[in-house]
Amino acid sequence: MRMSTAAELGIRGMAYLARNYRNGPVPMATICREQGLPRQYMLKIFAALGRAGYVRTSRGKGGGFVLAHPPADISILNIMEAIEGPLALNFCQSKPSRCRWDSPNCPIQPLWNELQEFTSRKLGEFRLDRVNDVKNPSA
Amino acid sequence: MRMSTAAELGIRGMAYLARNYRNGPVPMATICREQGLPRQYMLKIFAALGRAGYVRTSRGKGGGFVLAHPPADISILNIMEAIEGPLALNFCQSKPSRCRWDSPNCPIQPLWNELQEFTSRKLGEFRLDRVNDVKNPSA
Repeated sequence: MRMSTAAELGIRGMAYLARNYRNGPVPMATICREQGLPRQYMLKIFAALGRAGYVRTSRGKGGGFVLAHPPADISILNIMEAIEGPLALNFCQSKPSRCRWDSPNCPIQPLWNELQEFTSRKLGEFRLDRVNDVKNPSA
Repeated sequence: MRMSTAAELGIRGMAYLARNYRNGPVPMATICREQGLPRQYMLKIFAALGRAGYVRTSRGKGGGFVLAHPPADISILNIMEAIEGPLALNFCQSKPSRCRWDSPNCPIQPLWNELQEFTSRKLGEFRLDRVNDVKNPSA
């Protein structure tokens, strides 16, 4: 059970934009250089984040990427779901019909429900304004 | 963020064996028919579970697969880690060196640590004897 690489890199890129929110747009080349991220892949990931309305681009001199909302209005869950689709830790949470266990009486389903609920809540509560709590940023 | 298909199917197969633990070995054909699971894939998954010491096979008439330990001694975490390797929800948990954030001061790392700790604990606490709590099994 693990996060997709795309979501992981998307979160790092968005965290970087959050830390630089008051400085205006940041070129992708800068984000990638400072954070050691792969440029072509990041452009695809940020395209998905743009379609979901979490990041905007501006062209020309001084252009680049900027958060489309204040950091406090964007959660880690928002970013993950924009990239991976709705959170579903397993088939039980996304396509319960694929399982032969009798769902209302399945003994394992409560475990998946609890993990899903906790994960969704924690990811939703964590907003990008918290990345400014960092004491000694390396970039 | 989601479980691998292999882990999901492995858990279903192991849960079936747990429910039938007192009846002795179960042929793979029976497990797959009763649970609607793909046979060739399940043989690979059960090979990994066998190497990890959680399932045994017996050959010949009356042969098949059986749990290598009582259901109460096998957790969902055991099954997942035998199939997927050590639980690591993201790179932060498996390869923190790949990240440019200054680890001790990273503002997001506590979130991943908390999710990892909760998930690991819940998966480890849930043991296969609980699948017998089912009231109205469909298979």
